[in-house]
Amino acid sequence: MAATADKSRSRRKRRHRGQARGAAKPRLPYIQRKIASFDILSEEGLCLIERNADHILRDIGMEFSNDPEILDYFRAAGADVQGERVRFEPGMCRQIIQATAPRQYTQHARNPDNNVEIGGNNTVLSPVYGPAFVQDLDQGRRYATLEDFTRLNKIHQMIPHLHHCGGIVCEPVDVPVNKRHLDMMLSHILHGDRALFGALIGSERAEDSVAMVKILFGDDFVDQNTVLYGVSNTNAPLVMDDAMSGSLKVYAKNNQAVACTPWMITGAMSPCTEAGTLAQLLAEALATCCLTQLIRPGTPCLMGSFATPMSMQSGAPTFGMPEAAKTVLAAGQLARRLGVPFHTVGSLTSSKVADSQAQQEGTMTLIMAVLAGANFINHATGWLEGGLCTGYEKTIIDADLCGKLIEFCQGLDLSENAQAMQAIAEVGPGSHFLSSAHTLANFETAYYRSSTADANSYEQWHSEGSLETAQRANKIWKQMLADYEQPPLDPAKLEALREYVDRRKAAMPDRNY
Amino acid sequence: MAATADKSRSRRKRRHRGQARGAAKPRLPYIQRKIASFDILSEEGLCLIERNADHILRDIGMEFSNDPEILDYFRAAGADVQGERVRFEPGMCRQIIQATAPRQYTQHARNPDNNVEIGGNNTVLSPVYGPAFVQDLDQGRRYATLEDFTRLNKIHQMIPHLHHCGGIVCEPVDVPVNKRHLDMMLSHILHGDRALFGALIGSERAEDSVAMVKILFGDDFVDQNTVLYGVSNTNAPLVMDDAMSGSLKVYAKNNQAVACTPWMITGAMSPCTEAGTLAQLLAEALATCCLTQLIRPGTPCLMGSFATPMSMQSGAPTFGMPEAAKTVLAAGQLARRLGVPFHTVGSLTSSKVADSQAQQEGTMTLIMAVLAGANFINHATGWLEGGLCTGYEKTIIDADLCGKLIEFCQGLDLSENAQAMQAIAEVGPGSHFLSSAHTLANFETAYYRSSTADANSYEQWHSEGSLETAQRANKIWKQMLADYEQPPLDPAKLEALREYVDRRKAAMPDRNY
Repeated sequence: MAATADKSRSRRKRRHRGQARGAAKPRLPYIQRKIASFDILSEEGLCLIERNADHILRDIGMEFSNDPEILDYFRAAGADVQGERVRFEPGMCRQIIQATAPRQYTQHARNPDNNVEIGGNNTVLSPVYGPAFVQDLDQGRRYATLEDFTRLNKIHQMIPHLHHCGGIVCEPVDVPVNKRHLDMMLSHILHGDRALFGALIGSERAEDSVAMVKILFGDDFVDQNTVLYGVSNTNAPLVMDDAMSGSLKVYAKNNQAVACTPWMITGAMSPCTEAGTLAQLLAEALATCCLTQLIRPGTPCLMGSFATPMSMQSGAPTFGMPEAAKTVLAAGQLARRLGVPFHTVGSLTSSKVADSQAQQEGTMTLIMAVLAGANFINHATGWLEGGLCTGYEKTIIDADLCGKLIEFCQGLDLSENAQAMQAIAEVGPGSHFLSSAHTLANFETAYYRSSTADANSYEQWHSEGSLETAQRANKIWKQMLADYEQPPLDPAKLEALREYVDRRKAAMPDRNY
Repeated sequence: MAATADKSRSRRKRRHRGQARGAAKPRLPYIQRKIASFDILSEEGLCLIERNADHILRDIGMEFSNDPEILDYFRAAGADVQGERVRFEPGMCRQIIQATAPRQYTQHARNPDNNVEIGGNNTVLSPVYGPAFVQDLDQGRRYATLEDFTRLNKIHQMIPHLHHCGGIVCEPVDVPVNKRHLDMMLSHILHGDRALFGALIGSERAEDSVAMVKILFGDDFVDQNTVLYGVSNTNAPLVMDDAMSGSLKVYAKNNQAVACTPWMITGAMSPCTEAGTLAQLLAEALATCCLTQLIRPGTPCLMGSFATPMSMQSGAPTFGMPEAAKTVLAAGQLARRLGVPFHTVGSLTSSKVADSQAQQEGTMTLIMAVLAGANFINHATGWLEGGLCTGYEKTIIDADLCGKLIEFCQGLDLSENAQAMQAIAEVGPGSHFLSSAHTLANFETAYYRSSTADANSYEQWHSEGSLETAQRANKIWKQMLADYEQPPLDPAKLEALREYVDRRKAAMPDRNY
């Protein structure tokens, strides 16, 4: 009881503080889009891509390496399994997926106020995933540590425009590779109260993720509800290895969500043309989503898309490119036709710093992900260097864009108040609306308030030190850390989690793979 | 003859150089969009806004100040004119516009290869308009001069992703206010060979613009064809003054295009809600587009939209905001229903420098303008400080985004080559596409090549000096100036133009208003 009271007091306090900073409109823990998706392909084009994906699955098939159990699932379902190559009759995967995969599901957070609905017209924004380096204006670029991991978790928890804890918000390289996932999960649970990711690689680490959320939520609850979000990447073209199928199996068996996400630097891992990439992407997504339903019918799966061009001049991956934009829009359409939620990525850039390139590329990527109707957008904040690095300032600048897009997704209000016909009549030609009754009644909620933009005059900006955006963002993340309050957690659960982590760590020698 | 031969040699040379830099695909002088527009309002919502605009025009009307000739036009057409206030029966303006205004027209450039089609699925990108200051990394921020004007014209001419000369690319403040338009027009004609803007303010300066293009194109050609693009802003709410109606009249009488563009810092000059702003915007556009058709039926007019929120905290105009995005998308829909081309704005920001804020705001604005199906996008490059300043580096960074969006507008290629089914079969699972026949056949044209992004590794970027985007852009515009070649111009025409400018300047005392 005491913990509950503390919790609700703390939440009230936090909300009040958020409002004082300008969050005038109440926020949902996820986006409910009132705008349409942007369709780039016609019905005819979509059918063509689907037919090509079917032909790929029938004629070429997909390889599942080093995981005989996976092959058994496919064999039992009637697929043609030869060695590690699995081929499917046209329509087979789609039929299996559509028979049981949910179109929408709830991912439960440890704070039920932060539960997210994944699917339908909902969009969940999640921070950067996977970078080995961190960067800020004070300390520059460096290997990430567990301290960075914790600080980023705290910052993410303070950002109202994120809806999910995220997963590997950075790689804590000061912890042995085979033990990091334990510390990361504990840090997520301790420092945030939003929905959680499960470990990415291998069945063993995925089992640890499941065991830890069972301590947090209870065994039965986890079996009947989804509390983890897993990503399973293919090794394009047309391969899934056991590191990925291993975690996929664990999550599917436990009714936890898997975003089946072909990961493609296009031109290298898929054709250098979008239509070819899309057919291969759909084929890989179909085979792997199908697998989740064969393992446990009804377990949540998402169709994922990560496709970005390789520079044909340097071989480097590139981001924010128009071809990636077209691909994600079409992939979103294909996912909706398949009938599973759509997972993709946002705010991507190859820039090394939070500069113009970073925002031009990241803004393009994130807007397109939103227009694609994505239900889950990974890397919505903080990504730099093609994912090798995350930036503290970049996180704050990206979060501002997230806020803008959240407001954009609300669409156009056509209420009588929004029509403002009385105000236009009252003000009349040649006057202004500043003191009209309508403005006075609406000014508190009118317009998104940017946290990082400086809209003042040059003179005022100059007198305040001529700060660039990143410098302003630097102050914001520090203030967030100063204002951060740890969400309450049942001490008994915390102790059980710590004990689990200690026990598991003690049971393994340190390994760096 | 000699001039023609020179010209075509020079063009070949320029094209060849452009290709060498990576422009592998042949470029059109304007965008022919193969993607749909993004519709944010339903049919019902659009009818509501249209009805509200009609009610505004009937019940409140619009004021046309200090221009009795305008009032005569409206009176003769049957509008209710009382003093300077003009009221219209519902549907009247729409009917007059739809009876004669062209849905699409050609704006002729002095180089016919650069003629632009305005309307339909075409989009024309034009550089920044109006800034009194310029800024670059070398000299910082300063008042613009005629030298800046010329340098910017040269840079714009070198940018393949712009389709129009633009107008006041900066204010040459070293020239008296009442004579600048003459020097600016001469500089545009001399240094570029794309389509031209006419002077914005007042009938006298507009007459000079028309006189100068008559020297360039011939009197009859100008009377029968459109060679100037004029913008006529309202003084929202619901006023047009004689400075604007003066130039509007001159262009309309001479068959030159007018973009009738309500200019609104919303919350001050229109209601702080989008639905209210849209009704007022449509009302103002209807009345002013109608005026062009009353003056000369069939003269090209565009419905324009410039609506961006005022900060309710500081009173400053803000840019790249979600409310502006929603408004421009809806305005594009309203223009298409009206049946005239749609004019709007891109790459807007209140940032003082070419930093993250500038690109987050500018990218949001420009993408939304493109998705709104805009036929003409003013300020597509270079805008800073809410339009008070233009940046040399910002121009180059924005131009890169223009290039990306040009490629995006081409939509998804579904040709057999793009489907790449043979390549996927040839490569098979677990291999790569780098050396496939399909990649080798397509790599030269695959993927947009960014001019400003650095996609290299951190180590390589660091070893090359850790340059931010703006620093790379600084080198690019300098190289463009070094590579610039003046397009050939008939010496007799040039002399006649110079003589006109000298004569007009001599006929007026210097004035700074």
